[in-house]
Amino acid sequence: MGNVVPISSHSGPEPSLRQLLDLTAEDMGKVNEIILNHAVSDVKLIPELAGHLINSGGKRLRPMLTIAAARMFGYTGAHHVTLAASVEFMHTATLLHDDVVDDSEMRRGNKTARILWGNEASVLVGDFLLGQAFRMMVDVGSLDALRVLSNAAAVIAEGEVWQLAASKNTATTEDEYLAVINAKTAALFSAAAEVGAIVAERPHGEWTAMRSYGKNLGLAFQLVDDALDYAGDAKNLGKSVGDDFREGKITLPVVLAFRRGNEKERAFWKRVLQDGKQDEGDLEHALKLMKSNHAIEDTIKRARHYGAIARDALAIFPDSEHRHALSEAIDFCISRVH
Amino acid sequence: MGNVVPISSHSGPEPSLRQLLDLTAEDMGKVNEIILNHAVSDVKLIPELAGHLINSGGKRLRPMLTIAAARMFGYTGAHHVTLAASVEFMHTATLLHDDVVDDSEMRRGNKTARILWGNEASVLVGDFLLGQAFRMMVDVGSLDALRVLSNAAAVIAEGEVWQLAASKNTATTEDEYLAVINAKTAALFSAAAEVGAIVAERPHGEWTAMRSYGKNLGLAFQLVDDALDYAGDAKNLGKSVGDDFREGKITLPVVLAFRRGNEKERAFWKRVLQDGKQDEGDLEHALKLMKSNHAIEDTIKRARHYGAIARDALAIFPDSEHRHALSEAIDFCISRVH
Repeated sequence: MGNVVPISSHSGPEPSLRQLLDLTAEDMGKVNEIILNHAVSDVKLIPELAGHLINSGGKRLRPMLTIAAARMFGYTGAHHVTLAASVEFMHTATLLHDDVVDDSEMRRGNKTARILWGNEASVLVGDFLLGQAFRMMVDVGSLDALRVLSNAAAVIAEGEVWQLAASKNTATTEDEYLAVINAKTAALFSAAAEVGAIVAERPHGEWTAMRSYGKNLGLAFQLVDDALDYAGDAKNLGKSVGDDFREGKITLPVVLAFRRGNEKERAFWKRVLQDGKQDEGDLEHALKLMKSNHAIEDTIKRARHYGAIARDALAIFPDSEHRHALSEAIDFCISRVH
Repeated sequence: MGNVVPISSHSGPEPSLRQLLDLTAEDMGKVNEIILNHAVSDVKLIPELAGHLINSGGKRLRPMLTIAAARMFGYTGAHHVTLAASVEFMHTATLLHDDVVDDSEMRRGNKTARILWGNEASVLVGDFLLGQAFRMMVDVGSLDALRVLSNAAAVIAEGEVWQLAASKNTATTEDEYLAVINAKTAALFSAAAEVGAIVAERPHGEWTAMRSYGKNLGLAFQLVDDALDYAGDAKNLGKSVGDDFREGKITLPVVLAFRRGNEKERAFWKRVLQDGKQDEGDLEHALKLMKSNHAIEDTIKRARHYGAIARDALAIFPDSEHRHALSEAIDFCISRVH
């Protein structure tokens, strides 16, 4: 521990999740057990459908934040494992509902549950997982953790409705877009990190620090995800370049390209995203416009900005391998775009 | 108070919800306020869509159970009102998702939210209301109430998945069907009544009594609902006779008519419900078969059986106008079928 890792620089070794994975491996094994034990039901469809997504190779970054935070604070009990599992269930429930709302066909390189089992089952199994998440939190018995996580549940859904209502509007401002991802992505990262401090019974100022870390990490993570959808390669991403484009999603690269473009370019964005009229070659043209307007590049710059805030949020804590691992997770999230 | 009301008899005055409505009116006014205050959001679509269902004239029987139970136990605080509102939010969230899963077009005589705002918005606003329900419960701060209600949330969703997986199977047994409605309907009635005892800090035996009352009332309520779908009139029901039939739902009247029918009749039930091949005159034929097999009549008999259990569950409590009102609610639910 204590090795200095270069931050936001390409000269050192590539930032990785290795340290975070190593430090949380044992606890994450227990998280996995709890997840599997709570996705069971006499109704066979539930473990089948839930298992499809649970075993699909997600990084489980959110529950790792809870584990690493609790351990950084020296917590030695078992409640952080249960809370981490409930965070992952909340996330899984959200993904199931998201895929229904977005008519998505692929997730993490596999067919989505709604393609395999239908929209109806995806909605209901999502509800079941959310119910199980709350049951698990109640088992932990911390009203403070319950408050933070139930708040996140409502905020996430609110953000999704907002996105639905605002979707296809190319004139969305950067601020409006940030408010959406704050709700639909950053809220759960934030809650996941904060409950690590809560379960370790740290002073309120440390809850706030972890909340800020999680929130800004979540923002950076989502912005990089948005950039990857126009700049990534399908193999690493589990989805193809242009998925957001084809679904007409307004993300930050679009917001920037639209605002920076001329009249003709704005007409193009409106046609392909707002009116949904896409022809062959439109994605290539979109990529060209994003390049000339530095839209991807600046989306990543914005991500670095939130990453820096996340890093400073951790700065009040004494140096430790856990703090280091949480900090490197920021660099890892950002470095996914090359 | 203390008037003896004839039970399960048609000789006295028609049983009504009047006493329950009167006794809970003031508290239910506060419940309504909390509901309206928690269905707000800067995202306009949320109060619009939620308000459509909230103001659509549901009886609010479930939150009334919480209120009446708490008051029967002499509770004088304010937490029962918050818990009652969260019960109603859980119910509203379930209805929104149900209508999506069942492709329903009408509810309580109005177009469903999914017809007016789409499936996507119905799913997400349902999620938001569920999140708000948990937030409100956390505000009350009773881990016992949280346990009972989060358990109900998971059980309800599990029951819905079960129904989805078993749907269209005319060979469903009565026991299997009971297990489904136990989960999807009785669980929330049960939780609503039990948290009334919890918030009043009564001994555990009284929680159990209220749980049993709520569960059996819920079973009776659902069975009568099933019967009404084949025997009611559209004006009182807010839906037309035969909705369940057209949607191919397997309910107790179908279970009984199928099992009691001859080969030819079973082939008919399979064709119209399992295979979904319905022709003109099929609903009339179904009604004729139900009549000759006493399927509706015996569904109501079963409902009376659960109603009797619910009544006995209340018998341990001293006589009071609240106990009387809760008991009459059973008769009212059953008397909806004439």
